[in-house]
Amino acid sequence: MMKTFYSIFLVSLLFSYCSAADFCVGDIKSALTPSGYPCKPAAKVTVDDFVFSGLGVAGNTTSIINAAVTPAFVEQFPGLNGLGISLARLDLAPGGVIPFHTHPAANEVLVVVQGSIVAGFVSSSANKVYLKTLKKGDTMIFPKGLLHFQINARGINSIAIVSFSDPEPGLQITDFAFFANDLPTELVAKTTFLDPKTIKTLKGVLGGTN
Amino acid sequence: MMKTFYSIFLVSLLFSYCSAADFCVGDIKSALTPSGYPCKPAAKVTVDDFVFSGLGVAGNTTSIINAAVTPAFVEQFPGLNGLGISLARLDLAPGGVIPFHTHPAANEVLVVVQGSIVAGFVSSSANKVYLKTLKKGDTMIFPKGLLHFQINARGINSIAIVSFSDPEPGLQITDFAFFANDLPTELVAKTTFLDPKTIKTLKGVLGGTN
Amino acid sequence: MMKTFYSIFLVSLLFSYCSAADFCVGDIKSALTPSGYPCKPAAKVTVDDFVFSGLGVAGNTTSIINAAVTPAFVEQFPGLNGLGISLARLDLAPGGVIPFHTHPAANEVLVVVQGSIVAGFVSSSANKVYLKTLKKGDTMIFPKGLLHFQINARGINSIAIVSFSDPEPGLQITDFAFFANDLPTELVAKTTFLDPKTIKTLKGVLGGTN
Amino acid sequence: MMKTFYSIFLVSLLFSYCSAADFCVGDIKSALTPSGYPCKPAAKVTVDDFVFSGLGVAGNTTSIINAAVTPAFVEQFPGLNGLGISLARLDLAPGGVIPFHTHPAANEVLVVVQGSIVAGFVSSSANKVYLKTLKKGDTMIFPKGLLHFQINARGINSIAIVSFSDPEPGLQITDFAFFANDLPTELVAKTTFLDPKTIKTLKGVLGGTN
Amino acid sequence: MMKTFYSIFLVSLLFSYCSAADFCVGDIKSALTPSGYPCKPAAKVTVDDFVFSGLGVAGNTTSIINAAVTPAFVEQFPGLNGLGISLARLDLAPGGVIPFHTHPAANEVLVVVQGSIVAGFVSSSANKVYLKTLKKGDTMIFPKGLLHFQINARGINSIAIVSFSDPEPGLQITDFAFFANDLPTELVAKTTFLDPKTIKTLKGVLGGTN
Amino acid sequence: MMKTFYSIFLVSLLFSYCSAADFCVGDIKSALTPSGYPCKPAAKVTVDDFVFSGLGVAGNTTSIINAAVTPAFVEQFPGLNGLGISLARLDLAPGGVIPFHTHPAANEVLVVVQGSIVAGFVSSSANKVYLKTLKKGDTMIFPKGLLHFQINARGINSIAIVSFSDPEPGLQITDFAFFANDLPTELVAKTTFLDPKTIKTLKGVLGGTN
Repeated sequence: MMKTFYSIFLVSLLFSYCSAADFCVGDIKSALTPSGYPCKPAAKVTVDDFVFSGLGVAGNTTSIINAAVTPAFVEQFPGLNGLGISLARLDLAPGGVIPFHTHPAANEVLVVVQGSIVAGFVSSSANKVYLKTLKKGDTMIFPKGLLHFQINARGINSIAIVSFSDPEPGLQITDFAFFANDLPTELVAKTTFLDPKTIKTLKGVLGGTN
Repeated sequence: MMKTFYSIFLVSLLFSYCSAADFCVGDIKSALTPSGYPCKPAAKVTVDDFVFSGLGVAGNTTSIINAAVTPAFVEQFPGLNGLGISLARLDLAPGGVIPFHTHPAANEVLVVVQGSIVAGFVSSSANKVYLKTLKKGDTMIFPKGLLHFQINARGINSIAIVSFSDPEPGLQITDFAFFANDLPTELVAKTTFLDPKTIKTLKGVLGGTN
Repeated sequence: MMKTFYSIFLVSLLFSYCSAADFCVGDIKSALTPSGYPCKPAAKVTVDDFVFSGLGVAGNTTSIINAAVTPAFVEQFPGLNGLGISLARLDLAPGGVIPFHTHPAANEVLVVVQGSIVAGFVSSSANKVYLKTLKKGDTMIFPKGLLHFQINARGINSIAIVSFSDPEPGLQITDFAFFANDLPTELVAKTTFLDPKTIKTLKGVLGGTN
Repeated sequence: MMKTFYSIFLVSLLFSYCSAADFCVGDIKSALTPSGYPCKPAAKVTVDDFVFSGLGVAGNTTSIINAAVTPAFVEQFPGLNGLGISLARLDLAPGGVIPFHTHPAANEVLVVVQGSIVAGFVSSSANKVYLKTLKKGDTMIFPKGLLHFQINARGINSIAIVSFSDPEPGLQITDFAFFANDLPTELVAKTTFLDPKTIKTLKGVLGGTN
Repeated sequence: MMKTFYSIFLVSLLFSYCSAADFCVGDIKSALTPSGYPCKPAAKVTVDDFVFSGLGVAGNTTSIINAAVTPAFVEQFPGLNGLGISLARLDLAPGGVIPFHTHPAANEVLVVVQGSIVAGFVSSSANKVYLKTLKKGDTMIFPKGLLHFQINARGINSIAIVSFSDPEPGLQITDFAFFANDLPTELVAKTTFLDPKTIKTLKGVLGGTN
Repeated sequence: MMKTFYSIFLVSLLFSYCSAADFCVGDIKSALTPSGYPCKPAAKVTVDDFVFSGLGVAGNTTSIINAAVTPAFVEQFPGLNGLGISLARLDLAPGGVIPFHTHPAANEVLVVVQGSIVAGFVSSSANKVYLKTLKKGDTMIFPKGLLHFQINARGINSIAIVSFSDPEPGLQITDFAFFANDLPTELVAKTTFLDPKTIKTLKGVLGGTN
């Protein structure tokens, strides 16, 4: 019997030098690469690298959009590095809206966990609108790079968990891209068909210049 | 002014033949390919192809494990085809457990939306255990292909939404792989170090033969 | 010497059954898959499947934007199927503009082959503008999914060849997505911060309803 | 106790509809796609789809090159479809040589299982030669797309098992590409710097015309 | 004629600054990234970076499993870095067994080069067993992430060369994951259906605690 | 109204910590990884990282091949890092030829922007020639890893823009691989079927030894 015990320990030794890359917790202070951040040394990784509590806290919805996005992307949750997935929490107070935006690098799937949400996206070539009122428990897909939005559908706080097919999905809110920077009003007008007055007003609101 | 109207319609025509593949809703009756199912014709796709209500319904937890898994994989939700993502809902009644299992094709991220869950996974080379008690709002990562489990941590129903980095993550429950088929007891014994009596008992429970 | 001749023919036979997939010319009448179209049978492929003449013809720039996009995407040029690349030609008459748009599925590189072009893109998180006046021979990158535009910089016809990192890059023109469909004005207003009157005017111009 | 047995069967039912794509045995009579062949229906797959005996048979080395390549690519071994790997067997009789060639779609790793082999590859930019005499048990890497060769190093039969990083690695033997087709001698001369007489001789040997 | 010689040298110069990434020999002392290790500088790479002799040496099979696995993964053979492939050698003495295990990150193909091996794997959803006795020269596929095993089929030493579709396939032996660490017996019992006594015995054998 | 202005600024803050990886301009002095170079810090990136003027300058065609290749690969144009695309300019003076070569890592698409070019490639298994005379505006595909060439088709300077499906396509000119290094003449003879005299002559021309 001792032979068995001893021998199987040898088995353990035989296999122990096969050090596989089970995961790659991101060392987010190192330089990013096209495939993600360099990995934190495995010996320093603990279970806490795989656990994130930020989605348990309601976002602050006291802004004009009455809504908040709480991301669990690789910068907030480095354990996601290289895993092809990330999450976020949406809080939509009554009247809340997440304005038209895209995620340049990821498909999105949304699950309503409280309340009700009107959501839609627009296809690229035909500009067709896919629009739905979602109730608690409903799931909706927003394909990569396509313009989409979410609006609170009822007079109560609504919450959704959204998943992305990339640890860094990106987020480009169209109004911010158009009006929250120094792109000259003349160029915005030429490239959006909006009139300069409308542009200047929205630049004023969103902090844009020129 | 009419010139403007008329001309911009021309613009519309100029771009309209750029038919992009925004999405590929799976035609799941056609033969699968290594990249997923062939796409349903875009003209037949409606918003309902992107919406799934199955996660809003509690799973039946009246079995011995007091737990249920409700998948929203590509077969249940063909809109996910080719998008690199899928979901599932876990229901864990008091005493509920999802036994040791792997997802051969996907990383998993779990969000607790009700109750509390003890979850853990084991690394491949060092056999190190990453174990945590998760409360509502907590998120935990389970890397691709690694053995992991979830157990209800309290005396109340617990629910989690899990996301996967593939539309077909797969699910291999170790006990079912060992004991729920016709693999001869002698081979199971040799390859698991378990004694034949234990194997035969579990084969009996799980419906295995030989 | 005959032995040599005869024997090397044998070599030919030995290798001839190694039928590799050098290319996969798209059979674009078959159902698309997530990786592209099924391949046309190799025996029916000729050199003409790899040659496309459409970029040699100037686009019609007599519209209000005084510009045209001529795509060589997989639907126009099926030889590109599965190859991770496609092309297009831009024609910008004096005053010509390609309005703000994204390519949801591809990075873009533009080479000016005639004239001069002002081009810009906006980053996602910081909404920073990257703006440049390009002269003949200059190349500029537009990263995947980010809003960008091109404008004729001088009083002469300008031409560019653009390359994409996907056979189906997609093209979503923001104004068309917002105003050229049946998305209700109220929802557009909520999700863009634009006033209903502006929206209705642009819907009128671009053929939108509701 | 009966409750346990009964209940765990329920567990089995709960999970049984999670049909994952563990594998995709190629239906090689259907049209290829960029990601491989459509999958044979899982219900028709048997263990024999995963077993191939062709590498156990020595190739016929009685040609002038005194060598043979026996492939286990996806066409010969459809179980490899979509798996990112394939194999081949090399037989090199005394004097045997696998002439300069590339695999356009795969990295290669060779293991000598009998005899001894001189092998080499040439890097692309610096044209540096990486040359080694390999003995039984030695492994050598040949990177994707780079020109390489193998030669019997001793007076006895040598055998190697080679693995590729793709189910369809492709095989382009330079001499066959230059001389075994109808590419006009004049064009071969211009593009290889070889003199027409040498070209015509090799065309004669390899069955080329023009 | 001198013009020719001189001029072609110019050609050489023209192309010489196109430094391509033909390979990326791993600098395994640097931090891993999701795509592999940083590359050793090309100028320091020699042919010996592409040659590995470790598979030519029989593994030590004097343990209770009478078997050994000798890996040629990226840590042992850094030339494989980034190439999507790796190898290992299996030695199975009489009575030898490689117990149930998975490779979380790679498909596997096994070639028997000496003796005979009984091998099997279990599918994920249906728990179907794919079982075969392999003789010298036979090849068998084990799909990514699925439980499988190998057993010596005869009374003589058997050897196999196995190839993987990733430079770091990983290796998770189920018994080691369950019993060779500090996961509490109570949790192992709940998640495997095994009784505490069996668990404690195997923990004792394999060095586990708790 | 001030509430609106103030609140939307809050929105801006809410989203501003979602720092996405829109691009990854290569820090080409750092060590390469299998996925490309580490990224230059986003804060140091300017529009000039996305603009390259090198393709606007004619290559020097005064060599014997009367041709030049001007690359815009990642080393010349680090903004392409990680983007899956690169470019080059071909200049073919009268009589100009780009000899038989491969790009081991990329598909190529060529657009003739001036003059006329005869181009061809050879398939791998069947050694079939795909040959075409291209005029201005014509586009031709050269699949990854396959031997191909370009020749000036008329008595005037011809120019083409070529795009590749990788930031580092590589370039292996067959004659240089065979004759511009120290691979012994005997080995070249065995692996190309060329006679030693021809080999030594070409080694002399191209700077090879041995």
